[in-house]
Amino acid sequence: MSKKSDAPSDRARLRRLYERGSYDAESVYALLDALPLAHVGYVLDGAPVVTPTFQWREGNHVYWHGSSASRMLRKSEGAEVCLTASALDGFVLARSGFHHSVNYRSVTLFGTAWKVEDADAKEARLKAFVDGLFPGRWEMLREMTGQELKATTILSMPIDEASAKVRAGGPVDDDEDYALPIWAGVLPLAQQTLPLQADPRNLDGVTAPDHVTNFKLG
Amino acid sequence: MSKKSDAPSDRARLRRLYERGSYDAESVYALLDALPLAHVGYVLDGAPVVTPTFQWREGNHVYWHGSSASRMLRKSEGAEVCLTASALDGFVLARSGFHHSVNYRSVTLFGTAWKVEDADAKEARLKAFVDGLFPGRWEMLREMTGQELKATTILSMPIDEASAKVRAGGPVDDDEDYALPIWAGVLPLAQQTLPLQADPRNLDGVTAPDHVTNFKLG
Repeated sequence: MSKKSDAPSDRARLRRLYERGSYDAESVYALLDALPLAHVGYVLDGAPVVTPTFQWREGNHVYWHGSSASRMLRKSEGAEVCLTASALDGFVLARSGFHHSVNYRSVTLFGTAWKVEDADAKEARLKAFVDGLFPGRWEMLREMTGQELKATTILSMPIDEASAKVRAGGPVDDDEDYALPIWAGVLPLAQQTLPLQADPRNLDGVTAPDHVTNFKLG
Repeated sequence: MSKKSDAPSDRARLRRLYERGSYDAESVYALLDALPLAHVGYVLDGAPVVTPTFQWREGNHVYWHGSSASRMLRKSEGAEVCLTASALDGFVLARSGFHHSVNYRSVTLFGTAWKVEDADAKEARLKAFVDGLFPGRWEMLREMTGQELKATTILSMPIDEASAKVRAGGPVDDDEDYALPIWAGVLPLAQQTLPLQADPRNLDGVTAPDHVTNFKLG
């Protein structure tokens, strides 16, 4: 993030529960790196549209991509967008309905999206995306064709206007409610991997590489 | 959904990969019920803002809530919003970078948000929210106060303009790439519960109720 951005913009500033928020680059980067599934908002004919997509970070920029025919990508190029990535880490069950909450991590970026135009730069960005999730995979793959690069649009924006928000820990109840015989606590949730499903058309002797068997989300 | 909505609106229509999409009420309802964490988009001073929040469904309406001081709720009341809920179900690893994909479920609603004003109606909606996740919990809790109801804003919109999108299954590669000795397959992901964390201030003898120990997401 630029120096400028250490003071949050008005819209990035957390209006409520600001004790949960932070604006430093380290917090924002860590959340972006841990939360690849993002939701990108843009304005279409004056109304909001929110589309799930993957984001990845290189340095102080975030990237997302898709088909060059994608409406979301065509309409958000050169336009103001809001990119939010979140994870639900648990339900927080309190002794009153009012104090029920959730544990979560969330990061929100504001900015203007621009398109990565250069073919070599596009390929380098896609390699960083794939290798960021699965280290070393890009070099093992069939090489990308020029036609495939053309059919892929990559958008980006600098991480200049951002906020990170995290809630963790147990319930916080009204003082007098702790005397009530009501179970309270946290039901933690986590995104976990399930057993691999190898493609039945894998050639004989082809086994899952380390970047798959050792995969860790975040 | 209204009869009208069985023909998708222009913005709800999936422009690409339409074979993955559906607009029938059953598909939309099932995804909303399975994906409580949503991202609500609204327009603030002409620019998009995307905020994570919980949604719940009753009949043909979806609801979300928060503090009455929340900027998101104040700014989206009476305004056009887009509510999207998504889950990442797995990474789909193909033999080329281009054919890498993800398995996911996603539902998107468009509409105008309106505020639930009546105090009894608000309480009934919050009960439905809590009991939808944790059946029977509402009756066990300390009763909600009038002040707490005032401090809580609930927004809603009808499920009139909606689309559901699901991708499942293995990689689909170019015909000639199946001859390559590259591992392909699916790395499935799922949001799972971890061991309960009881509040250390629970009274002696208070044990976790069935709605917690039997909790299943979705």
